[in-house]
Amino acid sequence: MKPWTASLMALVAATAFAAQGTQDQIRAGAALSRVSPALEAYTRNALFGDLWKRPGLSRRDRCLVTLATLITRNQTAELAFYLDLALEEGVKPQEISEIITHLAFYSGWGNAMAAVNVAEPVFVRRRITAAQLPPAAGPHLPVDATAEATRVVNTQRAIGPEFPGLLHFTNDLLFQDLWLRPALAPRDRSLITISSLVASGQLGPFSNHLNRAMDFGLTETQATEAITHLAFYAGWPHAVSALPIAKDVFGRRPH
Amino acid sequence: MKPWTASLMALVAATAFAAQGTQDQIRAGAALSRVSPALEAYTRNALFGDLWKRPGLSRRDRCLVTLATLITRNQTAELAFYLDLALEEGVKPQEISEIITHLAFYSGWGNAMAAVNVAEPVFVRRRITAAQLPPAAGPHLPVDATAEATRVVNTQRAIGPEFPGLLHFTNDLLFQDLWLRPALAPRDRSLITISSLVASGQLGPFSNHLNRAMDFGLTETQATEAITHLAFYAGWPHAVSALPIAKDVFGRRPH
Amino acid sequence: MKPWTASLMALVAATAFAAQGTQDQIRAGAALSRVSPALEAYTRNALFGDLWKRPGLSRRDRCLVTLATLITRNQTAELAFYLDLALEEGVKPQEISEIITHLAFYSGWGNAMAAVNVAEPVFVRRRITAAQLPPAAGPHLPVDATAEATRVVNTQRAIGPEFPGLLHFTNDLLFQDLWLRPALAPRDRSLITISSLVASGQLGPFSNHLNRAMDFGLTETQATEAITHLAFYAGWPHAVSALPIAKDVFGRRPH
Repeated sequence: MKPWTASLMALVAATAFAAQGTQDQIRAGAALSRVSPALEAYTRNALFGDLWKRPGLSRRDRCLVTLATLITRNQTAELAFYLDLALEEGVKPQEISEIITHLAFYSGWGNAMAAVNVAEPVFVRRRITAAQLPPAAGPHLPVDATAEATRVVNTQRAIGPEFPGLLHFTNDLLFQDLWLRPALAPRDRSLITISSLVASGQLGPFSNHLNRAMDFGLTETQATEAITHLAFYAGWPHAVSALPIAKDVFGRRPH
Repeated sequence: MKPWTASLMALVAATAFAAQGTQDQIRAGAALSRVSPALEAYTRNALFGDLWKRPGLSRRDRCLVTLATLITRNQTAELAFYLDLALEEGVKPQEISEIITHLAFYSGWGNAMAAVNVAEPVFVRRRITAAQLPPAAGPHLPVDATAEATRVVNTQRAIGPEFPGLLHFTNDLLFQDLWLRPALAPRDRSLITISSLVASGQLGPFSNHLNRAMDFGLTETQATEAITHLAFYAGWPHAVSALPIAKDVFGRRPH
Repeated sequence: MKPWTASLMALVAATAFAAQGTQDQIRAGAALSRVSPALEAYTRNALFGDLWKRPGLSRRDRCLVTLATLITRNQTAELAFYLDLALEEGVKPQEISEIITHLAFYSGWGNAMAAVNVAEPVFVRRRITAAQLPPAAGPHLPVDATAEATRVVNTQRAIGPEFPGLLHFTNDLLFQDLWLRPALAPRDRSLITISSLVASGQLGPFSNHLNRAMDFGLTETQATEAITHLAFYAGWPHAVSALPIAKDVFGRRPH
């Protein structure tokens, strides 16, 4: 059975699917139809029947965008369902682990710790072992020396000598450690970063990070669809506020 | 017994009120006096004794503003109490259902799903039946063709051809479907939309939606009181940041 | 045993520490290592081994910044741990109580009520009595008449006669009551206020409140470290967005 079908079936309270997480999903589906038949229909038709099937952004990538949004907003009630969906859609356990770690820095430690509490029973139920997780330390990805030199200058300018601690952590911890961890591809790391920025309404660094994402291989179509996806998961106003910045970035890049 | 009195009594841990949700409220009131006698006093005197009794915005409308704030911020712990209060103050079950559906789009799907989980036991306890809920689909409200033509042009301009998916969803799903559902009056739909924008700090579309709310019949006094109410429920900074925009909107409308 | 050690030990699932809250912390530490060994290492080394030990801001003050962030963001899962840590680091029960009360106004009533629910079992477990809490009403701190006269003019200008209710509450309730309550020093009240503003991305009043904090005795070094601390707890983008405003405030003050 396709996991995609399962998520839809759970939402309409199907009982056939055998995964252990399904009972919660059936209950959630029953509550949804008990409170809002309209929202249930929108979820079935517009969200899963239309948005998630749109070309231009894979379902795996849509899972990354969704997880980044839920973790950034501390929306733990929905998180277990989407962790299961992500794992079914091909997101690896090591990538889930690394997404949570990355978002500790980009959305706040408390969000990551709350996500850990939701992910742990999912990992236990699926018998995900320590060997499947990224190690605490290990070899880093290679660095593009030119890009990194520019990045250092920009960081120095943005933070400044008035904030020596933040400068130290940003250089040594974020860009010369976290971003170089190999368990999550830089393009995926950038995709969850821009999703987190939109989800939290923190658009100051959005332009820089969208450019970085596209330097790492995210296409304009994928970025466009990611923002469209965010309209549903972060709310229309958050997504719409990112549009002028995205259009500006698209317009300035070589075509 | 007036429900208004009940909410006050619950907060001071009264035991006389017979509603089934009251036990939780008594516990909440006891915890409050155990941790902060000052906050308990502010809640009793400033919040319920002053703010909620101010003229200019009905208690029913204050319930809409409060529910929109709590749902938008995923504050599920307080939501059950205010759902009960809203139902006692005359907000209909179909309106509750529709508010949650509306805020899925305006504040993100995860917030609405979390609200569903809180509303479901409230609906069950109060024996609210499916017949009292808005159907998933049905006749729409009539459209003001002139206003809608302007809206289409503005949407086209704001989103642009670079985002065809978002343009499609905004036109077909939001404005030509969701906003036309009859279970919630357009004026109330606008009131929860502007409340949600303030509660999430998304003031980009606030001016447009405040004008829309006033076109639908929200008075300047009601808008003023709604923002005052939001100071308490969304925090002072969120409310204050909306003031210059609101004053500008008030000043430009015909008097 | 130093409580500082305890929090570290709990994170690595030590069993020796006898405090009653520790079982939860051990479980949290186990979940963390089960989901992300990297985040566990960052928590042990970068967060508690480096950030929390930096000079320039005491651990007690770091607890205030952290509590303000968690309460403002409704991150209840982590709150109990940090309430215990704060009490071990010398934050008094009356100060905890007052922080929650203050943040009802600055971050929204629902956040404070959720924090009450987390604090109550911590207070019960630690046998904190009503005599240790600030009374609902009592003598106020003395007012600096000159500064208050300026504040009244600024408030009048910022809110305006269009919002008589908000003006009334801001003057009578916030500045002539809440801010004058003696259970939390004005400097600490300002520190949690600026932390809350950064944590919620509400930077409109940040400049005013940072100046106010420094007028009350917060040093430039302490403010710098508080923002650095916020990078970890509110996420990098939130902290970085406050930097230009902070630099501007620092530059304009007499040195």
